[in-house]
Amino acid sequence: MTNYKKVSVENAPRVELHDQLELTGAEISYNTIDAGGCVPFIHSHKQNEEIYYILSGSGKAIIDNDEIDLVAGDFIKISPNGARQFFASKENSISYICIQVKENSLEEFTANDAIIK
Amino acid sequence: MTNYKKVSVENAPRVELHDQLELTGAEISYNTIDAGGCVPFIHSHKQNEEIYYILSGSGKAIIDNDEIDLVAGDFIKISPNGARQFFASKENSISYICIQVKENSLEEFTANDAIIK
Repeated sequence: MTNYKKVSVENAPRVELHDQLELTGAEISYNTIDAGGCVPFIHSHKQNEEIYYILSGSGKAIIDNDEIDLVAGDFIKISPNGARQFFASKENSISYICIQVKENSLEEFTANDAIIK
Repeated sequence: MTNYKKVSVENAPRVELHDQLELTGAEISYNTIDAGGCVPFIHSHKQNEEIYYILSGSGKAIIDNDEIDLVAGDFIKISPNGARQFFASKENSISYICIQVKENSLEEFTANDAIIK
């Protein structure tokens, strides 16, 4: 039993990492939408806050009818209730990771949670 | 009050996103270590599982005395108890995001937590 687990992800339409990484506090997925495409449904969440991090390409999110342009380097946090849908631009695909965590679950972090050896 | 918050991150030594993104279930940081450099301490955590995702460059982690090579596309999950230190390679810098979440805090995810509109 080690205290770590490593997985290498190649470009792919979607890779779900919860089971592969043996995660217990998050689900993380890697996603690519082809140019001109979109996630084919609008969704919200019961418990989970989502954070999207754009890795490459460009596109947009529509969240509660607001349209938000997205390019590489953008992080976007969405509260559970936000009705969201993601789109690639017409010209470019978009690749991003999506992190799901339970809203209000973090208690301490960084200096307050670390033990320096 | 919107259900989302967006932040754009440019290349930088370190950007901490918890407050900027108004996160409640995670802390996420963006980090770059220069070629030949390292995080100057070994640490573990009290409560938090960490997930590192390598964005570019190369380097290694030493976790509980195991040496793990890292390149772009690698995800590595570390349990709270793992004693960890990160290094850039001699030739290249390494950029990564680090996600902190409370161990065992995720209850449901993806299809079990989503509401399709």
